[in-house]
Order: sequence, then structure tokens, then C-alpha cells
Amino acid sequence: MTQRTFTVVGGGPVGTLLAISLARHGYKVGLYEGRPDSRQTDIYQGKSINIALSDRGWTSLDKIGVGTEAKNQAIPMYHRAIHGIDGEMSRLPYGKEGDAIWSVSRGGINELLLDVADAEANITTHFEHWLVDVDFEKPATTFSVKRTDELKVESDFVFGADGAHSKVRRLAHNLPRFSYSQNYMPQCYIELNIPANPDGSHKLEKNALHIWPRKDFMLIALPNTDGTFTCTLFLNFSGDPSFESLKERSAVGAFFESNFPDAMDYLENPVEVFMEKTAAPLFLVQVFPWSFNYKVGLIGDAAHAIVPFYGQGMNCGFEDCAELDALIPAHDHDWHKIFPAYENARKPNGDAIAELSKRNFVEMSDLSGDPRFQIRKLIEAKFSVRHPDLWTPLYSMVTFSPEVPYSEALRIGDEQKAVMDRIMALPDIEKDWDEEFVMEQLLELVSQAQSDSP
Amino acid sequence: MTQRTFTVVGGGPVGTLLAISLARHGYKVGLYEGRPDSRQTDIYQGKSINIALSDRGWTSLDKIGVGTEAKNQAIPMYHRAIHGIDGEMSRLPYGKEGDAIWSVSRGGINELLLDVADAEANITTHFEHWLVDVDFEKPATTFSVKRTDELKVESDFVFGADGAHSKVRRLAHNLPRFSYSQNYMPQCYIELNIPANPDGSHKLEKNALHIWPRKDFMLIALPNTDGTFTCTLFLNFSGDPSFESLKERSAVGAFFESNFPDAMDYLENPVEVFMEKTAAPLFLVQVFPWSFNYKVGLIGDAAHAIVPFYGQGMNCGFEDCAELDALIPAHDHDWHKIFPAYENARKPNGDAIAELSKRNFVEMSDLSGDPRFQIRKLIEAKFSVRHPDLWTPLYSMVTFSPEVPYSEALRIGDEQKAVMDRIMALPDIEKDWDEEFVMEQLLELVSQAQSDSP
Repeated sequence: MTQRTFTVVGGGPVGTLLAISLARHGYKVGLYEGRPDSRQTDIYQGKSINIALSDRGWTSLDKIGVGTEAKNQAIPMYHRAIHGIDGEMSRLPYGKEGDAIWSVSRGGINELLLDVADAEANITTHFEHWLVDVDFEKPATTFSVKRTDELKVESDFVFGADGAHSKVRRLAHNLPRFSYSQNYMPQCYIELNIPANPDGSHKLEKNALHIWPRKDFMLIALPNTDGTFTCTLFLNFSGDPSFESLKERSAVGAFFESNFPDAMDYLENPVEVFMEKTAAPLFLVQVFPWSFNYKVGLIGDAAHAIVPFYGQGMNCGFEDCAELDALIPAHDHDWHKIFPAYENARKPNGDAIAELSKRNFVEMSDLSGDPRFQIRKLIEAKFSVRHPDLWTPLYSMVTFSPEVPYSEALRIGDEQKAVMDRIMALPDIEKDWDEEFVMEQLLELVSQAQSDSP
Repeated sequence: MTQRTFTVVGGGPVGTLLAISLARHGYKVGLYEGRPDSRQTDIYQGKSINIALSDRGWTSLDKIGVGTEAKNQAIPMYHRAIHGIDGEMSRLPYGKEGDAIWSVSRGGINELLLDVADAEANITTHFEHWLVDVDFEKPATTFSVKRTDELKVESDFVFGADGAHSKVRRLAHNLPRFSYSQNYMPQCYIELNIPANPDGSHKLEKNALHIWPRKDFMLIALPNTDGTFTCTLFLNFSGDPSFESLKERSAVGAFFESNFPDAMDYLENPVEVFMEKTAAPLFLVQVFPWSFNYKVGLIGDAAHAIVPFYGQGMNCGFEDCAELDALIPAHDHDWHKIFPAYENARKPNGDAIAELSKRNFVEMSDLSGDPRFQIRKLIEAKFSVRHPDLWTPLYSMVTFSPEVPYSEALRIGDEQKAVMDRIMALPDIEKDWDEEFVMEQLLELVSQAQSDSP
């Protein structure tokens, strides 16, 4: 049998990981990326976009055999560093002792994966190839090369790994029975920067994700290896305050001074940046199917663009790759079976993490606000330590338990919420939360719920 | 002040009703329709597409002053005529004595509204004008005229009333912050025909909506004034049985013979029609916003394409028109206020009827199947007759209570369902359902729920 060929559209982290996986299973892979090679041209212009990787991401990278190097470039964040409006900072751990989410540079991990791909004989990588069209029948892809020439590529299979704005997916809108949704969040965002100290050290605590939660809006900061922090301000598009309402320089200055007083010592020209930048929208995309004619598939953000509030976007994309990587030998390279198995396995998880990511804005932005919310978390944490077999907090299931699918985490989390709602309805719970009878009652409710469930 | 101008894209029932409303408020309206004028060319080719109109539709037509003529062309259907697989027929009323949904010809009501529009000096109607492009800023619309010439039209405002496949809406996909979803149902459909008797009378009971409910699929028939019935077969796209699985003529014949034995005496060549026709998909479209730049709006199916299982599509579109008709004087013709008020008032109702229409497939297709379902309906009906102030069945709220918005009907219906779930959980309810204590318990639960609600 002749070697079968794949065209992978999109040379970001997910597309590159997919290409490596396919190549190692013996396929000949053409990896096509619209942008120039960041290893040769400084397209990031010193700007560092960072993302959070956690256990699902690492596990998936490990399964495909590229986990170890990536971790060297990452900074563990063991807790949230919560900055109150009074300038006081408190710490809230992400999980058990030693549990961490990891701040990684998107560019860094992408380049590392591209280096691995370059070492694979089965992969040829093509930069500055913008996708123009897809023939979903043949299949074939057409690229605009450096915006001048056009190149038509035929292959046995095609994967769209071209991100939240996926052109492959948009072209699929015209196919019969293609369900899709795109939903905007009320929030938009801009990125800000905290520079390093002159000696290259971090101006804020390094091993933490910093949050300035202000309920309707929030500022966050993730550490970079060069001593800087990349900050993101999430703020409503309209209303008050919003990107729409804050038009005057003086109002923007007052907004920062009154809401992020301690951060003003660190942020690099936040008011200027706010005035200059266009706020980027946040949106979710959900589609089905994720494959067409057993020939063309979607993966990563192209199949399920989510919002960043759970830090799971790239983790989910890497998990897609790992799932597919396991299905290829399981179905003996039969893509009439692999595509349906892949989309049926992953779609419920894509939908679940979309829902969880949407809900988590409230959780993050209200972290220091509601004392009842804190009490709820403390009760859960205490119970979870006593009965680890009965209760893993939702955040830990999503972030530190790759063996629990997202869809299961969502389902269990909703059951936990119903139980905790009843605990929080106890009279005087705000006074009594640390009393022994609360643990006893919780244990009873959990045992009840377990005997009720099918 | 010069007379302000509207371009209405789509000369179907909703677009035409909208044009009449706008014209009567003093606007100059250009009404553009892609198809030829059905009053001059027989584009329906004798085929009768009919739809169900109910109180919301009539109320809305009345508000705009065109209700009376329309009702002359309509056939009231007082009950469901349910055809069992054994050929037995039973009747289930739609509501109280005298309550009816009305079978109307889509073409007929459209032509009637077009005649009314022609009598309005403020309306000019243009057929065979296909929309090609929309400038959402100016605003302007470009039409292909009889597929040869192009015409660019500028106006103060534009409305897309161009149906489920709305081109105005699809062009809006590229606007910033436009949320949309398109979701396919598992079912597809084809239309079949029951001819009239030689004397022009109906072969089946005339004043009923006929249903052959077969759980995963169903056949329905609506009466036409010419003695025919328009039938629709709803069947899954894939699986067994499905449009995909029924490919052989012999299998299709066996499918009809075994599932619709009594209908075989009436249906006109169902097997041939099944073999020849391509099954049409069923899908829902939800978008937001429904207006752009305070200049371009969406209305009817263009804003909220739903599935036909509640018979509410055109009712909802007419209600959009009536709502807008009331908002124009309420906001003194200020479209900076009218557009937001319109979309904020109608969007929750569009979403609610979408949800209700989706759920109702199960209700319709399982009508004669589940005895517990029948018992549930009987208990509800009995309680509703005794306590009309406490309980209006969901179907009646949606169909016969235009004063209750769809969103309210959905909310109340969910509360009723929770209460009825508890009643149906009573031991021996299948035996005891007509006992007095069931009514008493239901009354207690309803009173409890009312005192709980905010």
C-alpha cells in the first residue's frame, strides 16, 4: 500500500502536534501555516502571549512523546494571588500541595513542537501558505503562497487545525447538515505588560497567577521566563464601566487608579495602551460534525473555540490530538471508523469545557468578593481532604485529573453544586462552617446522592 | 421632515405584513422579492404548502388591521385526529370547546397580504429582485434583477424578512460581535398529497389535524380548502428507519404499508414521491443582535428559524410585526430606541418558541404511544377545567393565549412539568389518576409552588 497523505492546515501548537502524531503513525504530512516561521522572523515583536498548561496538556504531550522538553520552558503557578481593591494580597491554592498550572509562552511551545516536526522525515512544513479554499469531496486544499502564487494540494485526508477563526470550518458552513454556533461574551480584552526588574527578576511573586477580581471586570497577570508578566484586562464591551464608556483619557486613568491601585506601580503605560488598542472580542464556537466525507476533520480551536477563563483551550486541543493518536492504531488506520469515533468521543468534552469556561468568568472575577463563596470553597476543600475518594473539587477534576473527561467533570460538578447548595442553605452556615456537624451532614448528602444515582 | 424610506427584503407573509405596517406609519416602503409574483405566474404549480395559524397570528393580523379577510380562507382544526397503527382513529381536542388552530395556505395568505400592500400608496413592490449584497453602514442593498441587471437601492432603513435561509442574516455574519447558531434536527421531511374526492370533498375528516404518530417518525395531514390534504412525513435522516436506510422501492413500500396502513387508501403515490424527492432538512437558527447600526433589522424566520412541530413559525413572525407596529408610535419614530426595544422584547420569545418547537416533536410523535403521557394530559386537563385561574396547559398558553409571551409560557410550563413529575411519581397513579385525592394533591403542590416563587 502506498503511503497515505495528510494536509494539516495551521502550524500552531495543535496543528504541529497533530502533524507529529500522524507522521509517527506512518503518514506523509504537509503542514501549512499562513504566517512566516517565527523561528526566523521576529513576528512576535517581543510580545509574549502566554497560556496555562495543566495536567491534560502535559499528559497529552507525554503520550505523543514530547512532554519533557516543553516543561523546561514553563513556570509553575501553585496558587492564585488575589489582589484586593485595598492593595492587600491573599493566596488561594489551585489544588493539593504541589498541584500547579503552568504558564508557558505560546510562541515558545510552538517553536519547540516545530523543531520536533522538522526532525520527522514524514513532515514537510510550509510557511506563508494562506488557505483559500477546500474541496471537501476530493479532498484538496488551495493556498495563496506569500500572497502572490496559488498552490493546489491534493491529499488523502485534510485536518483543519487553523484556530478559533478556522477557514476550513467557515468553508464547511455550506455543507449539508452542518450545525454551528458562534456566541460572543459580554466581555472583551486587551493585553498589558509588567516589565522585569533591571536584574531580570519578577516584580510580583513569580509562581502565582495574579488576579485583580472586580466582579464585572478583572485584571490577571501570568509570569514569563524573562521576568515580565503578560497581563489581560477583561472588561465589558458596553455598559458602565466598559470599553465603550471609557473613551476619555482622564476617565481611563481614574478607572485604573481606583480599581488597580497597587498594580499601577508595575504596569507599563496602561492608560496609553488602553487608549491605543482595540479591545478583542471573546467568543465560543461549537459545531458538529467535526469531520466531512471521512476525509476532512477539524481539531483544536477550529472545532471548539472557548473562552480563556478555565485556562483549558490548548489543553483541550492537545487532548484531541492524544485521543486521535490512540484511535489510529485502535481502528487499524481505518478512517471510516476513526473520524466518527474521534468526533463522538471529543464532541461532548468540547461542549463541556465550553460551558465550564463560560461559567468560570464569574468564579474568577468574584473571587475576593463574596464571603459565602469563600466559605463554600473552604467547606469543599476540607471535605475533599477528608474524603478524597468521595469528593474532588470541580476545578481539580478539570485541571489535575486528565483521567476524568471534561463531560464527566461537568456532570459531577453539577451534582456537587446541588449538594453544596443544600449545605449553604443551613441557617448560620457563615458562623458554623468549620463545625463538625457540617462535615457529617455533607457526608450524609453525598452518600444519599451516590445511592440515588443510576 | 422628508418622508423616511424602508427597504424590506422578502415579500413573503411576514415581509409583506411588515411593509403594510410601516407604510401605515407613514414610511415609504420598497418591498423586494426574489421570486416572481405568484398572482401572475403559477409558481406553486398546484402545490399547496399550508401552515397553522392560531391566536397569536390572528391577533397580530388584527392589530395591523388585516385579520378578517384572512380567516375566510382558513380551515379550523379543533382536534388532533390520531391514527393508530391498527387503523383506529381517536380524537384529542386542542383546547377548550371552540378552540382551534387554523390551516391556511401559505400562498393564499401571502397573496391576500400582497393585495393589501398594493392598495397602499406608500408601498412599491418589486418581484424577481434577488438580494446580492447589503451595505450595513449606509445602508444600501444590491439586487440582481431577473438575474441579468443589478440594482443598488439606498434607503434610511432596511429589514431582512427573507426567511430561514436569510441572505441579509448571512451577510451579517461578518459584522463584529454577531452571535449565531444553526442546528440541524435528526429528522428530515418530504411532502405528500391526499387528493380530494371527485365531488371536491375531503377524504378524511376535514376539521382536524391528522397525525400518524410512530414515535421516531410521523406523518401529518392538514386540510386545504380545495378538498386536498397536504401531508408531511417526518423521518430521521440516518439510522433505521431513515431516509438513508430506505433506498429500495420494495423497502419503501413495506415501510408505508406496515406503518400507515389506513393512509395508503388516500395517499397519492407515496412510494413514488418518496423515491423521487430529496428529503428537506429541519434546522433552527438563533442570532443576536437582530439589528445593526440602528439601520438594518431582521424579522420573522430570518431572525429565528424554528421547526414546525408547534405550528408557531408564522405566528411568531406576525407577532414580531405587531410588536414593532406598537413600538413605532411608543418611541415616536426614534429608531435608535425602536430597534433595541424590538430586539430585546422579541429575542427571549424567539428563543423560547425555538425551544418549545424542538421539544414538541417528541410530544406529537409519541401521542398515541405512552399511556402514562395520556394520563398526565388527562390529569392536567381535569385540573385546568376546575382551576382555570391556576393552570393553563402549556399547549394552550402557546397557542390560544397571545397575552402570555412565549418566554413566560416556557417558564410556567417548566414549573408545571416539575409539579406533574411529582404527581406522576405517586404509586399507582396509573390506576388512581381520576381519584379526588390526586386533584387535592395537585392543588396543594401548585399553591406551594406559587408561594415559593419570587
